[in-house]
Amino acid sequence: MNRNDVTEKIITVKVSKGLKWEDVAAKVGLSKEWVTAGCLGQMTFDAAQAKTLGAIFGLNEEEQKWLQVVPYKGSLTTAVPTDPLIYRWYEIVNVYGTTIKELIHEEFGDGIMSAIDFKMDITREADPKGDRVNVLLSGKFLPYKTY
Amino acid sequence: MNRNDVTEKIITVKVSKGLKWEDVAAKVGLSKEWVTAGCLGQMTFDAAQAKTLGAIFGLNEEEQKWLQVVPYKGSLTTAVPTDPLIYRWYEIVNVYGTTIKELIHEEFGDGIMSAIDFKMDITREADPKGDRVNVLLSGKFLPYKTY
Amino acid sequence: MNRNDVTEKIITVKVSKGLKWEDVAAKVGLSKEWVTAGCLGQMTFDAAQAKTLGAIFGLNEEEQKWLQVVPYKGSLTTAVPTDPLIYRWYEIVNVYGTTIKELIHEEFGDGIMSAIDFKMDITREADPKGDRVNVLLSGKFLPYKTY
Amino acid sequence: MNRNDVTEKIITVKVSKGLKWEDVAAKVGLSKEWVTAGCLGQMTFDAAQAKTLGAIFGLNEEEQKWLQVVPYKGSLTTAVPTDPLIYRWYEIVNVYGTTIKELIHEEFGDGIMSAIDFKMDITREADPKGDRVNVLLSGKFLPYKTY
Amino acid sequence: MNRNDVTEKIITVKVSKGLKWEDVAAKVGLSKEWVTAGCLGQMTFDAAQAKTLGAIFGLNEEEQKWLQVVPYKGSLTTAVPTDPLIYRWYEIVNVYGTTIKELIHEEFGDGIMSAIDFKMDITREADPKGDRVNVLLSGKFLPYKTY
Amino acid sequence: MNRNDVTEKIITVKVSKGLKWEDVAAKVGLSKEWVTAGCLGQMTFDAAQAKTLGAIFGLNEEEQKWLQVVPYKGSLTTAVPTDPLIYRWYEIVNVYGTTIKELIHEEFGDGIMSAIDFKMDITREADPKGDRVNVLLSGKFLPYKTY
Amino acid sequence: MNRNDVTEKIITVKVSKGLKWEDVAAKVGLSKEWVTAGCLGQMTFDAAQAKTLGAIFGLNEEEQKWLQVVPYKGSLTTAVPTDPLIYRWYEIVNVYGTTIKELIHEEFGDGIMSAIDFKMDITREADPKGDRVNVLLSGKFLPYKTY
Amino acid sequence: MNRNDVTEKIITVKVSKGLKWEDVAAKVGLSKEWVTAGCLGQMTFDAAQAKTLGAIFGLNEEEQKWLQVVPYKGSLTTAVPTDPLIYRWYEIVNVYGTTIKELIHEEFGDGIMSAIDFKMDITREADPKGDRVNVLLSGKFLPYKTY
Amino acid sequence: MNRNDVTEKIITVKVSKGLKWEDVAAKVGLSKEWVTAGCLGQMTFDAAQAKTLGAIFGLNEEEQKWLQVVPYKGSLTTAVPTDPLIYRWYEIVNVYGTTIKELIHEEFGDGIMSAIDFKMDITREADPKGDRVNVLLSGKFLPYKTY
Amino acid sequence: MNRNDVTEKIITVKVSKGLKWEDVAAKVGLSKEWVTAGCLGQMTFDAAQAKTLGAIFGLNEEEQKWLQVVPYKGSLTTAVPTDPLIYRWYEIVNVYGTTIKELIHEEFGDGIMSAIDFKMDITREADPKGDRVNVLLSGKFLPYKTY
Repeated sequence: MNRNDVTEKIITVKVSKGLKWEDVAAKVGLSKEWVTAGCLGQMTFDAAQAKTLGAIFGLNEEEQKWLQVVPYKGSLTTAVPTDPLIYRWYEIVNVYGTTIKELIHEEFGDGIMSAIDFKMDITREADPKGDRVNVLLSGKFLPYKTY
Repeated sequence: MNRNDVTEKIITVKVSKGLKWEDVAAKVGLSKEWVTAGCLGQMTFDAAQAKTLGAIFGLNEEEQKWLQVVPYKGSLTTAVPTDPLIYRWYEIVNVYGTTIKELIHEEFGDGIMSAIDFKMDITREADPKGDRVNVLLSGKFLPYKTY
Repeated sequence: MNRNDVTEKIITVKVSKGLKWEDVAAKVGLSKEWVTAGCLGQMTFDAAQAKTLGAIFGLNEEEQKWLQVVPYKGSLTTAVPTDPLIYRWYEIVNVYGTTIKELIHEEFGDGIMSAIDFKMDITREADPKGDRVNVLLSGKFLPYKTY
Repeated sequence: MNRNDVTEKIITVKVSKGLKWEDVAAKVGLSKEWVTAGCLGQMTFDAAQAKTLGAIFGLNEEEQKWLQVVPYKGSLTTAVPTDPLIYRWYEIVNVYGTTIKELIHEEFGDGIMSAIDFKMDITREADPKGDRVNVLLSGKFLPYKTY
Repeated sequence: MNRNDVTEKIITVKVSKGLKWEDVAAKVGLSKEWVTAGCLGQMTFDAAQAKTLGAIFGLNEEEQKWLQVVPYKGSLTTAVPTDPLIYRWYEIVNVYGTTIKELIHEEFGDGIMSAIDFKMDITREADPKGDRVNVLLSGKFLPYKTY
Repeated sequence: MNRNDVTEKIITVKVSKGLKWEDVAAKVGLSKEWVTAGCLGQMTFDAAQAKTLGAIFGLNEEEQKWLQVVPYKGSLTTAVPTDPLIYRWYEIVNVYGTTIKELIHEEFGDGIMSAIDFKMDITREADPKGDRVNVLLSGKFLPYKTY
Repeated sequence: MNRNDVTEKIITVKVSKGLKWEDVAAKVGLSKEWVTAGCLGQMTFDAAQAKTLGAIFGLNEEEQKWLQVVPYKGSLTTAVPTDPLIYRWYEIVNVYGTTIKELIHEEFGDGIMSAIDFKMDITREADPKGDRVNVLLSGKFLPYKTY
Repeated sequence: MNRNDVTEKIITVKVSKGLKWEDVAAKVGLSKEWVTAGCLGQMTFDAAQAKTLGAIFGLNEEEQKWLQVVPYKGSLTTAVPTDPLIYRWYEIVNVYGTTIKELIHEEFGDGIMSAIDFKMDITREADPKGDRVNVLLSGKFLPYKTY
Repeated sequence: MNRNDVTEKIITVKVSKGLKWEDVAAKVGLSKEWVTAGCLGQMTFDAAQAKTLGAIFGLNEEEQKWLQVVPYKGSLTTAVPTDPLIYRWYEIVNVYGTTIKELIHEEFGDGIMSAIDFKMDITREADPKGDRVNVLLSGKFLPYKTY
Repeated sequence: MNRNDVTEKIITVKVSKGLKWEDVAAKVGLSKEWVTAGCLGQMTFDAAQAKTLGAIFGLNEEEQKWLQVVPYKGSLTTAVPTDPLIYRWYEIVNVYGTTIKELIHEEFGDGIMSAIDFKMDITREADPKGDRVNVLLSGKFLPYKTY
């Protein structure tokens, strides 16, 4: 058994029961972004969270323990994603990558925007020309220091 | 001569004159994100914009014409970026890619978030524990339709 | 269980029963192109469509639910396809890619031809020198906008 | 000197003179698709065509000779194209590849749609919801034969 | 069940029964090259051929049906083959590829040698310095045409 | 200076003078296949051959010396060739590779068909349904031996 | 001109003058590890540091400005390094990577060891069986947080 | 059965029993770094160590024998690791690789830092600004010699 | 069943019985290098050899038949091996490859050292500074010939 | 200027003067294998050796200094070499890699054969069936140790 087995079980149960990530997240008491990432095998739950998820998805004790083990992260199966929705994000990094780099350095100097001390918020913006997906990414700036 | 030559000239002049993208964008009259992307060879300027940039960067008429030609886009030189700042964005797509996919589909159904009818806004959020980089991505939702 | 299992079951039943995609599509009431793509795990069916397919392919309720979940898309197993028929399409993109880019930009300006708001029609054209495969691709033009 | 040098010269002259591919094709007397592909280094011109192009783009005799040499074809610089417009075509092959394969085989049996005995026609279709790019691909069906 | 399962069964039976491809081909009534390729999952048999093979390899009705379905072709598992015998062919393409291209174009003009309207004949040539493998490849020349 | 410079010079002169490989080979006194491969930088000439080629292509003494140095072989710039003519050969290896392996082993046992003690003959076969390219490959069989 | 040109100039001068990185670092007043990384185009200097380096390596004002621009980082030219010394480090990551992951998570929980808030110290340890290279890597632990 | 099966069993038991690598190592009597690497399938145990591990993880005699067989090493499944923690190490090699090379050569001359005669020590350093991960790598210097 | 299954069985039995390759080879009556390569699925045994191995490893008749089938060769699972011992050999080819090429050509002219008419002998050389692995590779020189 | 420029100059002079590596090595006073590797940019010379080579190849003082700088090693331009002679070595590693691993471990235990404390000797063995290339590789065995 490994974390991947648990992830597959969660997804299978979700489909057969017709659950929504937003409701799962509400029961766990955290954002839908973080909880979904965790259920998809990218984040680590604590014991109480694992128990809640165990009740929702019918996970036994051993499966709940796997949710508390730090997983080997990375949800893409190829270096360049093939799924159109995920590819669009890769395209944004490809087309705008140097722009993002230039503007963050112009404002903050040398360093990076953290992908660890990081949060994400996905919302719908109503728009008569077609609703929009708005995604707010927020990461702490971490400067390179001299030594 | 090609667009790449013009991009390299723009960057060289920017460094030697110590210009800021924000000021360049203000003169062009558009967002710093879009103007920087254009100066880095990813977007297409119209004649008036090209003239403004020509004045800023000392571009001759032929070079200004290249700014008005749709470029072959893509700013990364490798499938997986090596620069730490840009890599963090690739990592976000890698770790959160399936999460983003799940949540957008849960809210909107099958389709994608457009990377074309798209805008981006990069801002600094002051924070006593270390300032944060906030990036708002906004893309129109495009549904797959049956036919 | 996942979507791929359902796809394999559909294909297996299709072979053993000797079904034709065109007939399957007629029962679903949509084009053969879209229905085939959906049966091959690339599109999302609604409940009524899934029920129809369930009757045709002997899918149980859980399998029908999987047909209604947005799949992780991408039908090729390698970056460059090895199958001669599919490779010819990759070759067309490789040989004519920059031509297509130039001519669309010449007519429409900077932007893309959508692969989402998109439809395809495959027909046979009788020809004494050998029948031809005609494929009409139709995608909405999506312009890049300044912001 | 090689064919690539001639291609680059053609593109450079096109930009500085502001020529359109459609007009170039009209002077050569063939479709805009084939002539553009040839000017971009993918097709072979005969002597008369090369002379016409020589007059348009200011090519000397040696450069005209290169237009008559069969080129090493392939216009993409990476296995997966990075340009958003060209990528959308790669995506179509990726998402619909197996569908195209199934439907052509269902109609014609084992074989391929030729990318050599092939033509392409790119047109604009006016549409109140946004104009569409229509592309008609027509290739002779070539059956595998037993021996 | 898929075509690959049938291929593996054929190979397993061939080894355990000690069959020879040449004899299998004689029973099918076609060349050993085409029949072997078909048994290895690269070609499509008709119903009568499938029945003959079913008798030889003990294939049930469903397995015989799979032999009549056009397969996803491509017999190599890596872009550059690792097996020394097959690699030597890749090496011939690598070392002589541009030579073959030059000489076919010199004789025929722009176009290709078909790999579909194609046949192959492998024979042994006795030679006192060591017998030789002679392979005759014959493909129809398909010219690019203007349009 | 290196061998590649000499190859490029030979090709450039060939185009500007309108030479044919067959005539070049006749002057060297060897097959067109081997001489073309040598001129394209894949084979090694002796002093007399280099002198003959020097006269044809206007190569100085140093350039003639480079023709006598064993080159770093390999004429493809990518693992999978992008040129349609050369790709067809790669496709033959891909589709028929395991077939070739099976049949050579059935006839000769374990070993390879040499790509070194090897010759190739490319000829045109007239055919009312379209002329054919016939290519005869002949390589010594080299058996693996036990030790 | 770009940062790479400056890096190459620095290296060329260093070789022709026979300078040592340790002495360069002493003049800059920082560790040899950080200064060397900066001279090799991986870190960003301030104006005073750039002036010092300008004096050492004979860099003009524009070249000094490039030292103050945040570079596109990444010093390897291939995904897997070919140089034996650098490869050994890649091997350590390959062989010990999951071990490092397990032990850091066991001690700190889910998160990473920063490669930005990071320092490195390379020293020689005398050893009668052969001197040892000791490298101390020190990076702040950054925990993933829930949100 | 192979070494990988044993590794997976060890990990599964560790999770279900909630063991710590540090405690496992203490029982084996060696460093936590080496023992963890061994349990993860990268090092070779002797009979006594295998017996100890057998008692801890409930391994039968055959499984214990596998722990004594030299494994095929390499713990990453992709050339560039996708897990953020392990990637940071790859990034260090990428950003600092040439720096490490320069400084070791400056001190020791041509040669490498051994990854075989090598040890690693991972410790926590308390720090009010956030605790740090300190990793000491120690490898014998191996000089290239002339011959 | 395929050759790989037999290879895995041989390895499993070898570990559980604690056999040595040297002893296996002695029973087969050939060198340890060739026999080991065969047992690892790279060489083809004759019936008598297969029977001997069948007795040693408990292989049934069908498994013995697989040992007599020419395998698809290639023992590495990645283009660049990850195992440190095997990688060192790849490194030798990488660092010394052009040297080996130059020296063999200097002595023999254009051609190759055969990897088929080839043998290998691995021995231990006692050395007070640490024993050495000596490997003698012997391959017939095969010259390229003109034709 | 960099080491590669010096390597290219050495090769160019060698061809134009018709020098032999064996004679160059004799003047340097070391083996032909090591000296050739150094001239091809893989090894580091001392001042006296560089002076000798300077006299042979007409290298100025700065070029001689580059010969004394440790180079970035790796002589192949692709992960899998395309040159037939060098490829045969890659094939040996591919076919015999696991055999070499097994036999060295059987004799020496866990560890590697050094590619640093290493020497190579290439000789011709006369043989009536065709002369052989014999290559003796000798590397110190380096054991993994526990800690």
